[in-house]
Amino acid sequence: MSDDHRYVGARVPRREDARLVTGRARFVGDVRLPGTAHAVVVRSPVAHGRLTRCDVKAALAADGVLDVLTPADAAGVRLPCVALAPGQRMADYPVLEETVRYAGQPVALVVARSEAAARDAAELVDLDFEELPAVVGAHLALAAGAPLLHPEWGANLVTDFALGDPADECEAAIAAAGHVVELTTRLGRVAPYPVEPRGVVASFEDGALTVWTSTQAPHHVRDHVAAALGLGFDRVRVLACDTGGGFGGKEHVYPDETLVCLAAVRLGRPVRWTESRAEHLTATLPARDAVHRARLAFDGDGRFRALHCDILGDLGAHPSNVGISPIAVTALSLPGPYRFDRAGARVRAVVTTTTPTGSYRGFGQPEATWTRERLVDEAARRLGADPVELRLLNLLRPDELPHTSRTWQPYDSGDYPAALEKLRTMVREGRPARPADGRRRGIGFSCHVESTGMGPSEAMRQAGIQSGGYETAVLRMEQDASVVVACGVAAIGQGIETALAQLAADHTGVPLERVRVLLGDTAATPYSPVGSIASRSLVLGGAALVGAAARLREKIVAIAAHQLEAAAGDLEVSGGAVRVKGDPSARRTLAEIALSAWRAWDLPEGMTPGLEERVTYDPAAYTYAFGAHAAAVAVDPETGAVEVEGYWAVNDCGVVVNPAIVEGQIRGGVVQGIGMALTEEVVYGPDGQPAADYLPPYAPDAPPVEVALMRTPSAVTPGGMKGAGEAGIIGPPAAVGNAVAAALPEAADRITATPLTPAAVWSALSEPGDG
Amino acid sequence: MSDDHRYVGARVPRREDARLVTGRARFVGDVRLPGTAHAVVVRSPVAHGRLTRCDVKAALAADGVLDVLTPADAAGVRLPCVALAPGQRMADYPVLEETVRYAGQPVALVVARSEAAARDAAELVDLDFEELPAVVGAHLALAAGAPLLHPEWGANLVTDFALGDPADECEAAIAAAGHVVELTTRLGRVAPYPVEPRGVVASFEDGALTVWTSTQAPHHVRDHVAAALGLGFDRVRVLACDTGGGFGGKEHVYPDETLVCLAAVRLGRPVRWTESRAEHLTATLPARDAVHRARLAFDGDGRFRALHCDILGDLGAHPSNVGISPIAVTALSLPGPYRFDRAGARVRAVVTTTTPTGSYRGFGQPEATWTRERLVDEAARRLGADPVELRLLNLLRPDELPHTSRTWQPYDSGDYPAALEKLRTMVREGRPARPADGRRRGIGFSCHVESTGMGPSEAMRQAGIQSGGYETAVLRMEQDASVVVACGVAAIGQGIETALAQLAADHTGVPLERVRVLLGDTAATPYSPVGSIASRSLVLGGAALVGAAARLREKIVAIAAHQLEAAAGDLEVSGGAVRVKGDPSARRTLAEIALSAWRAWDLPEGMTPGLEERVTYDPAAYTYAFGAHAAAVAVDPETGAVEVEGYWAVNDCGVVVNPAIVEGQIRGGVVQGIGMALTEEVVYGPDGQPAADYLPPYAPDAPPVEVALMRTPSAVTPGGMKGAGEAGIIGPPAAVGNAVAAALPEAADRITATPLTPAAVWSALSEPGDG
Repeated sequence: MSDDHRYVGARVPRREDARLVTGRARFVGDVRLPGTAHAVVVRSPVAHGRLTRCDVKAALAADGVLDVLTPADAAGVRLPCVALAPGQRMADYPVLEETVRYAGQPVALVVARSEAAARDAAELVDLDFEELPAVVGAHLALAAGAPLLHPEWGANLVTDFALGDPADECEAAIAAAGHVVELTTRLGRVAPYPVEPRGVVASFEDGALTVWTSTQAPHHVRDHVAAALGLGFDRVRVLACDTGGGFGGKEHVYPDETLVCLAAVRLGRPVRWTESRAEHLTATLPARDAVHRARLAFDGDGRFRALHCDILGDLGAHPSNVGISPIAVTALSLPGPYRFDRAGARVRAVVTTTTPTGSYRGFGQPEATWTRERLVDEAARRLGADPVELRLLNLLRPDELPHTSRTWQPYDSGDYPAALEKLRTMVREGRPARPADGRRRGIGFSCHVESTGMGPSEAMRQAGIQSGGYETAVLRMEQDASVVVACGVAAIGQGIETALAQLAADHTGVPLERVRVLLGDTAATPYSPVGSIASRSLVLGGAALVGAAARLREKIVAIAAHQLEAAAGDLEVSGGAVRVKGDPSARRTLAEIALSAWRAWDLPEGMTPGLEERVTYDPAAYTYAFGAHAAAVAVDPETGAVEVEGYWAVNDCGVVVNPAIVEGQIRGGVVQGIGMALTEEVVYGPDGQPAADYLPPYAPDAPPVEVALMRTPSAVTPGGMKGAGEAGIIGPPAAVGNAVAAALPEAADRITATPLTPAAVWSALSEPGDG
Repeated sequence: MSDDHRYVGARVPRREDARLVTGRARFVGDVRLPGTAHAVVVRSPVAHGRLTRCDVKAALAADGVLDVLTPADAAGVRLPCVALAPGQRMADYPVLEETVRYAGQPVALVVARSEAAARDAAELVDLDFEELPAVVGAHLALAAGAPLLHPEWGANLVTDFALGDPADECEAAIAAAGHVVELTTRLGRVAPYPVEPRGVVASFEDGALTVWTSTQAPHHVRDHVAAALGLGFDRVRVLACDTGGGFGGKEHVYPDETLVCLAAVRLGRPVRWTESRAEHLTATLPARDAVHRARLAFDGDGRFRALHCDILGDLGAHPSNVGISPIAVTALSLPGPYRFDRAGARVRAVVTTTTPTGSYRGFGQPEATWTRERLVDEAARRLGADPVELRLLNLLRPDELPHTSRTWQPYDSGDYPAALEKLRTMVREGRPARPADGRRRGIGFSCHVESTGMGPSEAMRQAGIQSGGYETAVLRMEQDASVVVACGVAAIGQGIETALAQLAADHTGVPLERVRVLLGDTAATPYSPVGSIASRSLVLGGAALVGAAARLREKIVAIAAHQLEAAAGDLEVSGGAVRVKGDPSARRTLAEIALSAWRAWDLPEGMTPGLEERVTYDPAAYTYAFGAHAAAVAVDPETGAVEVEGYWAVNDCGVVVNPAIVEGQIRGGVVQGIGMALTEEVVYGPDGQPAADYLPPYAPDAPPVEVALMRTPSAVTPGGMKGAGEAGIIGPPAAVGNAVAAALPEAADRITATPLTPAAVWSALSEPGDG
């Protein structure tokens, strides 16, 4: 609104950090209410079975115990599967059930005066199960005679449908092309692993439930808890505290939190639950774990012709809140930034006796990138071509945009080849020395285009959903010209408070420190249908804010025009005032205008008093960010150990509000992606028992990550922003995998699955192959 | 909105009462924050003087003491006089000052870990004063040679101006009339005396101040505290708790609360202060205490010709936040419901060395009614006429409305004679038996018209203020068709939560128990420029709500029309659904519509998702309620003791949302008014020292009060409501005074001042007079 923009694009320090680094942040663990009781979730020790005894007498009699909830106590309390797949027979599920389908499934909740008492009493809950056979692995779930998780369905298959070009057209195009590479690939099952585990404090007073929780989507929690407990939506208030990372795992509403709310209602006193690190690996939804049979067809000069992928997803015990959406997004993202005559996918998903799979940063896109970019490198190897040159040949050029992909994605703007060219230069200049230490070295590249912001999609349209992706901002200028922004998106450590404050300061013409951002309180912030997911917070929240600022400007200028007896067109906003152009003496400060607006003094006839605007931005479409990544690796052929020696990322997320925040987001995502590539996996034994260890990378494990930003404005979003939160994690598995394949060409076609642990790489090197 | 209204007009139980009567209400005293410190205000023991020593060393060294604030520590912290009188030289005042002008004026604040430690340390603050002469009584303040409170002004007179018809025209009309009665009258200085005294808890964290306080006007507190402490308005959040009565005394922002906020900022920990009953009589602003020299001129057949009043108000030590407004309202209200050729007033106000005077239920109108109605009864006595018949002769008839009074009041609607006729019937039927107990008995009547709702006025226009009286309501229908109302007005025990819920339920078509009302949180409720004062909460908050409901209905019907493929005009809202008239099968439930609105499913093209409307109602004018009161008294001529044996009130406040609440408001006001008439007075000695006792009536002192409601809709307000909160207190002093005068005709012209204590009545009977 102001004509002197000063903050958008600047490396403004994150305002969140002052409280975070001085210990003044308020996480769920910091919420202290008098008389709080503590809950412990009793979980199934078996992967599949029927609960035949759940005797809580001894637990109830234990010292300090206030309540024990069994499946009977929670009868009728169910959580929805929001995203339904074609043919899916399950629209919701009970929070406690007598049939268990994964190890760690909640079977009871113990509430006591102290956490220790609750833990002790949980040991006294006497459980017995009639065990049923486990089913681990999507192919085994499909096999004839496989044990059925839901016998009434007659199969473990939940859905089977096609996306993109029809299968017969894809087959014809593949057959017509001169060359085909085929791989069966998989990204391993990984866990979002935030610094702060999940947690909740629920308090029920005077017929109203207040819930403090670690969440990405406070209104989502509000809606689901209210519906599950049969409370009026007006009686449930959810407050999102500071959040030590979400990564998708905190967009869901879980049985644990819902049970704690139920306990608070039953007891009429506050109840707290905090997830332990050990619980996290079975209680918080993991992600990925789909198997792709993928084919890339191309002609002799390297032009891509067709791409097809048969995707088999593992949903775990039942479709989660997001159901098959991550797998569908994989299918929709498959073509990436390249040109194809035909591209399509078959999507199937099955249930297995493992924790349900859900959202995780990237949401299906790292999987698509892994598969496509591995195929591209295999095609280059087949052709004897340079992998970068092959990519440049097939990347969509700027003059081809906007472009709708064969899987219906309306790419809006960008320069994909420029990103790869820039990356190649960075790698040439930054490539580490190659000492003769007996290790084999390689460099791998990957390119991607990324759907961000969550507008309506073809898939949503097919499901009869018009939108659901809108966001609302309320912008208020107070009487002293300080500014308050309230928005439905949530702060999950991504710096959204700072970014929205930068936008608000520039668009209202006040100093940054005079802007306050309110988020994450369903009683005070506007409704958000989905919360901070899908790299949408700044794209949609920011667009709504920009819209509200435009309306506010119009009102401020109208007041000034009235008071200065000038035409609105002759006014400009600068230096904290509205001025008549060319007349330095004729001005009204923003504070003078704000005071008269709120006091209803000297306003144009009929104008509503006050300076507060509320705008909802309902996007017409997703907006598409893009990037190119490269990794340099060293592989020890004796042990199979992979070290990432260098990492480079070029990202374009449109208008960059704060480069320091975007670079930080990308670096963090890259390190998570390297963890996914090399070490992280949630592993189950054939009996459905999860392994107890999990190896995320720590700070010392992170290689130097060099980030360069490009800035092609979004053609869709007011403000020009595209999403940046997930960009970092999409490229690394493919770049690292391609680097390992480049280092070990003889084993390249066996580099198909993550994590590339020493054992896995050593095995790939040891097996006979076609390399 | 719904076509089946069920709640407006019904005696719905007050929803507030469930928590109030079961001890679950949350007053300021119930706010518990970890680490809270306690404050005690050190007050001046002298009425007038200069602080020559304020040694806090011993206090600071005392056990548990955290901070002591002196005038030097609060330099620059000032509170505004919002309403300025013509010629007033003071626009704000310091919260701590070295010149004291009333006994009880704050001079320091002691903060300690416990209240006991703070009290002990307050005793250690070593004060010395150079004493100056006190000035008590408005006439003494005007006398030549009176000590000056502000020597730089050259006088104690703050303002002197005329309202209504010019003085010369009034004098001419009085001279031309055949008869004149003249009285010099006064309503004694009284204190609002809520069940809950004032109190505050302030917490400063992360640059933001949160204030829980007992207030009628949370945004008012926010604005004044932020400005006083130099904090951004966005950094101050005020939460009004349950409030045990306001009565005007809690519309002000006081030095005490402001100092507590300053202490919280200095200490960075929560600080609490609770007013004691003893403090209340000097620390909370009292009211009334103006002297009127008043004349009523009439002709031989009893027709009123002219009314003039010379008003001399006592502002206490300095103009309070409301300044001379109560005195100005007295002047504006003087003509009441009667017809005059001319009416006007001279308004003067002085400062004296007493606690500043402020707002109290009725705000100048009981004073005007006392003076006018005493004059009317004296006129009847002079004419030998029946006081009721004389009133009926002069009351404005319904066919004369709308009518603008000689003092610019635009009476909108009513039937004043009908109210008095109804009252006379009630008195005839209900008059108590008159036992021969030696007491003398009389019945007195009074009529009034009452400005409610606070629209713009001529006086405001003259001060350049367009409005300032607007109110905003936010109305949201949640996905389950539960409804949330947020409004800027405050709950102060008057039942506004229930009344707004009734309106919302009827206008949205949902059951009452599905409506939640949010009030009193500046972070979550819309801005209110003045809060719950001036009998405006339901008038303006309700009008805004009715407007928001109309918009919500329009949106709901538009969605239903789109989904049912019907014309909006063919739809009706009833039974929780929108239906096609005449087609029982074609309907959408409100919950179905609400869900699709929030989920953005199947909406008309271009419609903003969600169901939330925000409407500001900016009234074009005040709306005028009216009433007639009667009291039956017995006077013991031996002791002067007055007993009220019967009381009757007829009130018309337009559309009555909840008759039980309105009747309760009127009964409570009547009892306060009887206290004012008979027992209550804040008394000062000539040295400016206040007397320590104060005698409000308690429940057993209350006579039976019979209330009848009339219902002439407001011609101004959407919804037709007029204010009811102050109605009860306006009539009683005049009705009781006229009853005493009727019982003691020989002393009637000496019944001119309240309280009519036994001593005062006995003196009136004992003095030689013209009766």
